[in-house]
Amino acid sequence: MTDLTDAHHMRHALTLARRGLGQVWPNPAVGCVLVRNGRVIGRGWTQPGGRPHAEAMALSDTDAQAATAYVTLEPCAHHGKTPPCAEALIAAGVARVVIPLIDPDPRVAGKGVEMLRAGGVQVDMLPAFTAEAEEVNAGFLLHRRIGRPLVTLKLATSLDGRIATASGESRWITGPEARRAVHLMRATHDAVMIGAGTARADDPMLDVRDLGLGHRAPVRIIADGALSLPLTGRLARTAKEIPLWLMHRARVDPLRQDAWTQAGAVLHSVGETAHGRLDPLGLLETAAQAGITRVFCEGGGQLAASLLSAGLVDRLVVMQAGLGLGALGLAAIADMDIPTLADAPCFTLHDVRRLGGDTLSEWRPARP
Amino acid sequence: MTDLTDAHHMRHALTLARRGLGQVWPNPAVGCVLVRNGRVIGRGWTQPGGRPHAEAMALSDTDAQAATAYVTLEPCAHHGKTPPCAEALIAAGVARVVIPLIDPDPRVAGKGVEMLRAGGVQVDMLPAFTAEAEEVNAGFLLHRRIGRPLVTLKLATSLDGRIATASGESRWITGPEARRAVHLMRATHDAVMIGAGTARADDPMLDVRDLGLGHRAPVRIIADGALSLPLTGRLARTAKEIPLWLMHRARVDPLRQDAWTQAGAVLHSVGETAHGRLDPLGLLETAAQAGITRVFCEGGGQLAASLLSAGLVDRLVVMQAGLGLGALGLAAIADMDIPTLADAPCFTLHDVRRLGGDTLSEWRPARP
Ligand SMILES: NC(=O)c1ccc[n+]([C@@H]2O[C@H](COP(=O)([O-])OP(=O)(O)OC[C@H]3O[C@@H](n4cnc5c(N)ncnc54)[C@H](OP(=O)(O)O)[C@@H]3O)[C@@H](O)[C@H]2O)c1
Ligand SMILES: NC(=O)c1ccc[n+]([C@@H]2O[C@H](COP(=O)([O-])OP(=O)(O)OC[C@H]3O[C@@H](n4cnc5c(N)ncnc54)[C@H](OP(=O)(O)O)[C@@H]3O)[C@@H](O)[C@H]2O)c1
Repeated sequence: MTDLTDAHHMRHALTLARRGLGQVWPNPAVGCVLVRNGRVIGRGWTQPGGRPHAEAMALSDTDAQAATAYVTLEPCAHHGKTPPCAEALIAAGVARVVIPLIDPDPRVAGKGVEMLRAGGVQVDMLPAFTAEAEEVNAGFLLHRRIGRPLVTLKLATSLDGRIATASGESRWITGPEARRAVHLMRATHDAVMIGAGTARADDPMLDVRDLGLGHRAPVRIIADGALSLPLTGRLARTAKEIPLWLMHRARVDPLRQDAWTQAGAVLHSVGETAHGRLDPLGLLETAAQAGITRVFCEGGGQLAASLLSAGLVDRLVVMQAGLGLGALGLAAIADMDIPTLADAPCFTLHDVRRLGGDTLSEWRPARP
Repeated sequence: MTDLTDAHHMRHALTLARRGLGQVWPNPAVGCVLVRNGRVIGRGWTQPGGRPHAEAMALSDTDAQAATAYVTLEPCAHHGKTPPCAEALIAAGVARVVIPLIDPDPRVAGKGVEMLRAGGVQVDMLPAFTAEAEEVNAGFLLHRRIGRPLVTLKLATSLDGRIATASGESRWITGPEARRAVHLMRATHDAVMIGAGTARADDPMLDVRDLGLGHRAPVRIIADGALSLPLTGRLARTAKEIPLWLMHRARVDPLRQDAWTQAGAVLHSVGETAHGRLDPLGLLETAAQAGITRVFCEGGGQLAASLLSAGLVDRLVVMQAGLGLGALGLAAIADMDIPTLADAPCFTLHDVRRLGGDTLSEWRPARP
């Protein structure tokens, strides 16, 4: 049985941790609550850019002598750009540390707990909160465990799964509430990713707008094998203000590479599939190597099909508007090789609700 | 202000009325509650096949002297196969009749109220319940007002709006709960309708199963312009037990007409569009002339496109399962001529919820 007080404070710490989502890469989003005699005496969460860590923030401006620290992830044990949090907790005189999750990062991986115990601090695991802590850190954990970011795929479709009319008109299928929700989702991911087709057709900004938050903008990633995007588009024109990463195949025109670099874009070379497409796993691993832990993919249909076919979608968000567009409209998911229903990528329903005049459903991969 | 007692009993009567949906065509589904001194002394609803009427059922086996009758539709005033209900209410000594809605049928259309008042009965309208009574009788009212039935279109799709794989496999995209809901929906409609493509591909029964109800089976209507369905299919083999209506164009092989008639089917000739398709409004008007007030259309994609393009869908039910099928899958709505988003048939969200592992959303036409 989990102690009710422990549960209460851990829930608080997890809520703080979520504030960092999308803001703290390449670091995990951690929350920390310091409690003494039932009173909260310090609160912290990983700050934009990943530093200070949650523990450091919570410890600042408070006397934590004999306190209990609720931390959503094992405190770090290694000297990075900041001294290890485990050391800081010991130095502050914290008596007990409660955590739901060991940090899989090989530089930590239990060493934080060891260091704390060696320093005389009692460390308790809270297994009842492991699943929730895994959920908050899903991107960071995937990144450390298998070297790719978490992928959320968003489909904003008509009633019949279309994302644009035959002529390519897609603004706006869903309503203002759905679009606002998209901006919120962007803000909680490290990067927003689209295919070159969508970038060309929609000339989007892919920024986070109208949330009234001083947010760290997500990196804009474009899967553009041939570096074919026009240098005159909105992405190019804003590349110096908001990070723009172009994922391209190895052999591309060096003049275009130079031009894009001068425009402010960051170029990443990615391997190809047998069909000459950028390898979808390669796309994600390249982003992960550059520190990205959470990717929000907004299509289009071809990139969506590629990620789904490769089993690389961890969360699927479907927004559906009350329009019928018919079979001439553009498909939300392009051609996939699915001979029978049993071969289709399969998801289980996580949540469904009304979102303004549209529906919003969230799905997770069905693990067999 | 509506009297609370009146509201309570009218709600009761409307609940009774709904029992008749799908069972009483060509008649309206009516409910009737008799109340004296605050006590319910009789209840009735239109019986399967449309007779006895709700009022007759409520009046049987009770002394209704000085009672108030709550009836969901104006009592009839004409001598049909049963004597007029207005007369029966007067004869029973009912003191007051409360109704939310005038019957638009030209044989009634206010004459029921007149007859009651002439017989010394007080008649009160309950406008607070007009909308709900219109909703219960939507099919009957459309039938009487514009000569076509209410059309509910069901789409059971993948996440990306597909109703079958490229090879035509469609069983089962949605789960058992959704399929059960489909059987319930069938049971509350007078007829189930599909296109010849679906009839050929799926060889369906289109019956109402596993509801544990002794239901009047909905008529099975197939839009089969050329009478091309195989006489060896399940529809043909069961045509003598469950009504099967084939809608075909005027000129068809007389031998096939004979063979189908002998198999037990009822044939209806319907006009054609400029493209040689059965005219969708003609399909519905023909069904209405034969008494049908509520049609449940289960596809396929071509028939759905035809009804949507013609603005003939009154209720749209979308069931979505957690599968991605990709653009090679069969479209839920076939080609429509929609140059811009503004040209798309547009619906407003009525309800959305989880249905087993699938989502269920219900939409109504957005009236501009
Ligand atoms: N309603 C909505 O929410 C929404 C959202 C997005 C898009 N859309 C619409 O969708 C349309 C564009 O969709 P689309 O399917 O044509 O384009 P897309 O998926 O955005 O981009 C496809 C292109 O991306 C590049 N690419 C690189 N790696 C890829 C990979 N692994 N898999 C697939 N593509 C890869 C390919 O070009 P290279 O070979 O040159 O690399 C490919 O041609 C536009 O009309 C847009 O308006 C609507
Ligand atoms: N997942 C599901 O819930 C579901 C539901 C239904 C169907 N399906 C699948 O859908 C596929 C069949 O769909 P489909 O689009 O090919 O066929 P469909 O819409 O069922 O039937 C089309 C045929 O109906 C006849 N028709 C008559 N009047 C029409 C009108 N006004 N508009 C359109 N058609 C009219 C036409 O044949 P004539 O010219 O000979 O009259 C036409 O070829 C099958 O694979 C089936 O499994 C799946």
